[in-house]
Amino acid sequence: MKKIDLNSDIGESMGVYKVGLDEEIVKHISSANIACGWHAGDPLVMEKTVDISRDHSVKIGAHPGFMDMMGFGRRNISVSPKELKSYVKYQLGAIMGIAASRGAKVEHLKAHGSMYNLAARDIELAMALAEAVYEVDKGIILVGLSNSEIITAGKRVGLKVANEVFADRSYNRDGTLVDRSVLGAVIEDESFAIERVVGMVKDGKVRSIDGYEVEIAADTVCVHGDNRKAVELARGIGEALKCSGISVVSMSEVLG
Amino acid sequence: MKKIDLNSDIGESMGVYKVGLDEEIVKHISSANIACGWHAGDPLVMEKTVDISRDHSVKIGAHPGFMDMMGFGRRNISVSPKELKSYVKYQLGAIMGIAASRGAKVEHLKAHGSMYNLAARDIELAMALAEAVYEVDKGIILVGLSNSEIITAGKRVGLKVANEVFADRSYNRDGTLVDRSVLGAVIEDESFAIERVVGMVKDGKVRSIDGYEVEIAADTVCVHGDNRKAVELARGIGEALKCSGISVVSMSEVLG
Amino acid sequence: MKKIDLNSDIGESMGVYKVGLDEEIVKHISSANIACGWHAGDPLVMEKTVDISRDHSVKIGAHPGFMDMMGFGRRNISVSPKELKSYVKYQLGAIMGIAASRGAKVEHLKAHGSMYNLAARDIELAMALAEAVYEVDKGIILVGLSNSEIITAGKRVGLKVANEVFADRSYNRDGTLVDRSVLGAVIEDESFAIERVVGMVKDGKVRSIDGYEVEIAADTVCVHGDNRKAVELARGIGEALKCSGISVVSMSEVLG
Amino acid sequence: MKKIDLNSDIGESMGVYKVGLDEEIVKHISSANIACGWHAGDPLVMEKTVDISRDHSVKIGAHPGFMDMMGFGRRNISVSPKELKSYVKYQLGAIMGIAASRGAKVEHLKAHGSMYNLAARDIELAMALAEAVYEVDKGIILVGLSNSEIITAGKRVGLKVANEVFADRSYNRDGTLVDRSVLGAVIEDESFAIERVVGMVKDGKVRSIDGYEVEIAADTVCVHGDNRKAVELARGIGEALKCSGISVVSMSEVLG
Repeated sequence: MKKIDLNSDIGESMGVYKVGLDEEIVKHISSANIACGWHAGDPLVMEKTVDISRDHSVKIGAHPGFMDMMGFGRRNISVSPKELKSYVKYQLGAIMGIAASRGAKVEHLKAHGSMYNLAARDIELAMALAEAVYEVDKGIILVGLSNSEIITAGKRVGLKVANEVFADRSYNRDGTLVDRSVLGAVIEDESFAIERVVGMVKDGKVRSIDGYEVEIAADTVCVHGDNRKAVELARGIGEALKCSGISVVSMSEVLG
Repeated sequence: MKKIDLNSDIGESMGVYKVGLDEEIVKHISSANIACGWHAGDPLVMEKTVDISRDHSVKIGAHPGFMDMMGFGRRNISVSPKELKSYVKYQLGAIMGIAASRGAKVEHLKAHGSMYNLAARDIELAMALAEAVYEVDKGIILVGLSNSEIITAGKRVGLKVANEVFADRSYNRDGTLVDRSVLGAVIEDESFAIERVVGMVKDGKVRSIDGYEVEIAADTVCVHGDNRKAVELARGIGEALKCSGISVVSMSEVLG
Repeated sequence: MKKIDLNSDIGESMGVYKVGLDEEIVKHISSANIACGWHAGDPLVMEKTVDISRDHSVKIGAHPGFMDMMGFGRRNISVSPKELKSYVKYQLGAIMGIAASRGAKVEHLKAHGSMYNLAARDIELAMALAEAVYEVDKGIILVGLSNSEIITAGKRVGLKVANEVFADRSYNRDGTLVDRSVLGAVIEDESFAIERVVGMVKDGKVRSIDGYEVEIAADTVCVHGDNRKAVELARGIGEALKCSGISVVSMSEVLG
Repeated sequence: MKKIDLNSDIGESMGVYKVGLDEEIVKHISSANIACGWHAGDPLVMEKTVDISRDHSVKIGAHPGFMDMMGFGRRNISVSPKELKSYVKYQLGAIMGIAASRGAKVEHLKAHGSMYNLAARDIELAMALAEAVYEVDKGIILVGLSNSEIITAGKRVGLKVANEVFADRSYNRDGTLVDRSVLGAVIEDESFAIERVVGMVKDGKVRSIDGYEVEIAADTVCVHGDNRKAVELARGIGEALKCSGISVVSMSEVLG
């Protein structure tokens, strides 16, 4: 029987600022990526998010990003590999401390926004990311864009890795994501998105934006909880997977 | 044979900003309190400071403070116990992550500046501080002003506690520190400071600013590495202790 | 004919974080207090908020606060008068720069949260606040809690001052606000709140929480735009004032 | 008689962190670029730096940078032109507010670090920079790398512009700076540096790293005050200019 993990970025509120339907989306996922206070989140939010996740038997992950609250961690910052490595260790440690205090454990790490995107295509930054995780706790699973440099780096340092695919994004012929500036990069049609996810998980294939069949490894699917529509899509994906005989389980179960 | 620990706040540089003679002061102490990036320090500095400490067989401690870089963590912020607890967990986790990555372990925690001072006299904040440590790692020693609420709270939650005394500060008759605004609060005379430390460690007593003999528990002495003179005082204290048959050892050895 | 100003704190969004119904509340007020990026807001939000205000003929004001985004500027920070003065100048200058670039002018300044509360009862901090405004631009009106130290300080340095009253807060017999922790401190009943405002503006009097008639100077009334209910209250207050023959005008018109 | 301005980045201390020999370097320059609290500096430091500059009859300039204290504003951040424009207005306003409070006036603006470098070669960012200045105060002089996009943009929006040259940096054949990673990019030899500056100012020419004579416009020379050696070089440059019959005057005098 096929298995897949569903992950979502949560815990992105900060102080009086509230974003995301965290209490809703946790009902539909198996892994939560919790912001660590640099691009979003704060210690109180992290603590509450660990609790919500644990209460729904959702696995807890670190979601480190660049220190850029105004840009929500989405803007590239030209950090050195050494800096990135150090920033990841810091944030991973912080969420591990908070998780420990709530009787929970950090199971995976997924970089946020531009940290994720930069590391996905730059092996030096990807190695820095992977080494940071390995040196802090070699039992943590590294999540990265399917077939990207993050996956290469994670394997190279000896970590378990999870290939991530996106329900609502188009792919190029080489398996990379179509840039958001390109028409058709984001898939708006909900049923088409659901169908694609099932295909990626079941057959390990996806049709590229220009019509080619592309092989794609899928260990975890990224879903969103920003608004009601996103939560609905996540729920729809979960149901469609179940109907296709695919069970939604934790990353570690997927990886075996 | 009497034993004592010498501790110092180090790792307070940040980015291009360099402060403190860290490489010098580590030669004279047994425990380092490492800033965690909120009031001072940054991940790269924390990493380097862990390495310097470990290379000199100096025990590593967390030194969390308020998020107030402009005020260096010295200004009171009216946080709730819940907020303080969460902030301490976050910073403790962060330094634990970085220490782990360098093959080192966090052995103690000492709050910085106004976080230390507020908790020393407010049992609710002190309990928040102690619980934060206990819930993240119950093996960590909590350092607090000798006989203060921090010590009370640490014992109450079940932590090992280290009573801290100051070489260069005057004491009131009730064992509290004389406020810095009072004339004579800071002891400038180096040999008098050294003599007092030896007395506190050897006899468990200190003469108050108004001439009374006060009982004082001393497990660790705070020394500074801000400048050459401070490092000299630390060296002098270490030598005087040795001459008096007192060995400078780690906190855990002092506490037995 | 009686005149009054209605003011509201707006522009409190930051990056991806959106709060407040700014586009709604500006329809019901005559003065906007715009957050300056320290406790809330960011340069892009400030710019947009200046535009929205100007488009509705709402006067623009600076709304400086403590650098404490996690606490939304509501936590006391033990700054010195010198520090407070400098922080106010900085933030006032920043919003003046942005306002100038949009062809607008900063007409008043109201400190935010704990900066407002601390200065209201501490003449030294109040003087620092007033001097900051005076030294940057002596034509700016200083808003402060009615009859508080802020009003005293503003007059003393030679600024125009605006006495602020609150629709939804109870008053003590001495004209100070009842602390939020006290039962009855916040008035929930909308029509009672409206009635009180009209009374304060018309008669210069308010009934204290313990039943005494208290004299109160009212140049501007604080209303909120956090949610639909708050906007409705603001609208209701505006209408009730009009029905009572009181016109809602800018602060400078109120002060004559 | 030839005229030139000497400028230096000062006011880069922050809180307890002290950097730069500001009190020394102001004796040798005619224009000060004052950090605005985002990459360095804080309101108290800005105030003190305005005073020091004014006391030495040194003209005051804004020195805005990216919000990246850990990276000292030297790391590229992929901001949009709209963001950059807004950030510059904010920081320019802040220093104008502080300068006004000290009876001083902001005369020029020079972007810091990566903000300067990015705008120097990207016309869209350069236009954003120039428009920000123009919209806040059209009388302010925009400083930019000689012949760079900053100069083009400044002229296009209608600002006075000052072409900046560097004493200690090598030039390419096209008048751009040799990248710091290239051997020979930084000129260590003090007398050679001084000689080059005099040549650039007197003849409007400099020899490129590969031996060609390159035309270069020089309205202001950048000098440093980081350490004693840098201050000595600044002093040396000033004396050499005087000996060559070139007077060191303010930017506005240079531009006529």
